[in-house]
Amino acid sequence: MSELLVEVTRGEIVESVHRGDLVVIDFKGNLIASTGDPNRVMFARSSAKPLQALPLLLTGAADSFQLSSAELALACASHSGEPEHTELVQSLLARLGLSVDDLRCGVHAPYHQKTYETMLKNGQVVTALHNNCSGKHTGMLALAKFLNAPLDTYDQRDNPVQEHIFQVLQAVCEIESDKVKWGVDGCGVPVFAMPIHRFALLYAKLAESVRQENPQEKIGWALKRLASAMMDNPKLVAGSERLCTDLMMSMPGRVVAKAGAEGVYCVGWVEKGIGLCLKIDDGNSRAVGPVVIEALSQLQLLTAEEKNALNRWHRPSLVNHSGTLVGEIRPAFELQIR
Amino acid sequence: MSELLVEVTRGEIVESVHRGDLVVIDFKGNLIASTGDPNRVMFARSSAKPLQALPLLLTGAADSFQLSSAELALACASHSGEPEHTELVQSLLARLGLSVDDLRCGVHAPYHQKTYETMLKNGQVVTALHNNCSGKHTGMLALAKFLNAPLDTYDQRDNPVQEHIFQVLQAVCEIESDKVKWGVDGCGVPVFAMPIHRFALLYAKLAESVRQENPQEKIGWALKRLASAMMDNPKLVAGSERLCTDLMMSMPGRVVAKAGAEGVYCVGWVEKGIGLCLKIDDGNSRAVGPVVIEALSQLQLLTAEEKNALNRWHRPSLVNHSGTLVGEIRPAFELQIR
Repeated sequence: MSELLVEVTRGEIVESVHRGDLVVIDFKGNLIASTGDPNRVMFARSSAKPLQALPLLLTGAADSFQLSSAELALACASHSGEPEHTELVQSLLARLGLSVDDLRCGVHAPYHQKTYETMLKNGQVVTALHNNCSGKHTGMLALAKFLNAPLDTYDQRDNPVQEHIFQVLQAVCEIESDKVKWGVDGCGVPVFAMPIHRFALLYAKLAESVRQENPQEKIGWALKRLASAMMDNPKLVAGSERLCTDLMMSMPGRVVAKAGAEGVYCVGWVEKGIGLCLKIDDGNSRAVGPVVIEALSQLQLLTAEEKNALNRWHRPSLVNHSGTLVGEIRPAFELQIR
Repeated sequence: MSELLVEVTRGEIVESVHRGDLVVIDFKGNLIASTGDPNRVMFARSSAKPLQALPLLLTGAADSFQLSSAELALACASHSGEPEHTELVQSLLARLGLSVDDLRCGVHAPYHQKTYETMLKNGQVVTALHNNCSGKHTGMLALAKFLNAPLDTYDQRDNPVQEHIFQVLQAVCEIESDKVKWGVDGCGVPVFAMPIHRFALLYAKLAESVRQENPQEKIGWALKRLASAMMDNPKLVAGSERLCTDLMMSMPGRVVAKAGAEGVYCVGWVEKGIGLCLKIDDGNSRAVGPVVIEALSQLQLLTAEEKNALNRWHRPSLVNHSGTLVGEIRPAFELQIR
């Protein structure tokens, strides 16, 4: 069963709590630490985006279209819909001979509230470019184009794009196809549920690929290029005031980090070649920062200075609308370190 | 310990879950049904608003200022900041010789997204009138004025306004002052934590007061006026597409219902003189509708027709940004009925 991970206090009591499961493994699959159920089956949601971008590199599509490091980062992103995100997606679509009309991710308001408010004030219209997954979908379109697969069904499970992704998933996460459960993601593409340690393995391998100067296999090089792209473009992977961006900016080249919907978070720690995967039971993202920073701290990966710099994610203060400090969100667990 | 109450599915698995505690008692304090811990200490947050409005009636302030049924409903409301809400708050403030500048609730965007978007498009500024608690704060200002208490500290615990509320709380909820824990609410006023059954008792008494044609005591009349005001003005208590409004509109005069932040919900069922209080552990409001409708259903209070009309709250479908059904939120508990 899952464990209590986070307490939300108000005044004299703990008002709310968040439970969940967390696992840390190395790139060989050895369990390093955990709390809760290390076999819990979960959707990694957007934390799986590097998996979904890998076929771009393995097939040669990325080189064929000369995808930049920034564009690869955007293919792995859950971006905030800020101008730097949408402009880059738009320019890549144009280079592919495509447009926003080819995106099948649907439309939602930019995550970045100020961007959204500015757009409304200026009478601008929200489009699929602002969908946090528009970079991933553009990557899938690039792969479809490279494979000569149908462009209008790139989000369907039987399209070669999704079949390539599923093959890569089995190889990288070392899981048999019949062990994978399926669903549809918030942006319409297939998502896959696996035991939590299989997603931790993906991030351990991303980390290990960067740690190695010359990865031996093609897949190692592909992982290295993707992880490096994410770490080199932390603002593109998420956006302003986002945990992924802050983590990767505050420890450049040392950590590759990616959020997923419903309280998912994955981290690869380069120096150790280890990966962490977290799933909050109730899906609330406010619990993620406290758990991730606390886990990295308990694993003794953070200096006092780094921990301090990330304090607003570690123990966020709760300030109400009239400006009064009313409580805090704080970690409340101890990792079992093996 | 709390119990599993709600499952959130996606494709082939349960992706997230919500736990919590729920208790149903009658107006005499007898336990009718529960799941989880019936003694769990919690803040009722905005579900306590009827308590905070009661002194208006008990002191004579409401009659002195000729507060309408609509204005009393607004004093108990967590409104969506739609024009009908803000206009009524503004007109009441004017009648009291006050203005938006006297409100100490702080500013947040209207809950009603379309209202907010329209305001931005039209260049309108969000004010404290749009704060979901502006009606409650206006009620507190009316009480302060009636009591000749300082107006600029009506939100402080030692102001006569808050002292009156605390006296009423002890009387109605039948609890000793040293059993109450304190905190500060999202809008800056004191909030009180008590065992969950004490808040259920408040709603049982609200329901019972309506059931009785002639409540015997002054407090019974005050509860009856407040409960009737809420039931007669369901749109003012919450707003468009809100559970409180939908519940009270779909069963006029039979149910008094009020949400609170952090996954709290209270219901008074008039015909039975019983009250329900729910607290979701993790504070997520998406779990509230499924639990409340399921609990009312298990208590055999809803007709098949009523249950059907509330289906979008009972088992909400999860549809993604590209319009595909990806899962549902469903109740997953059985009440222990005594």
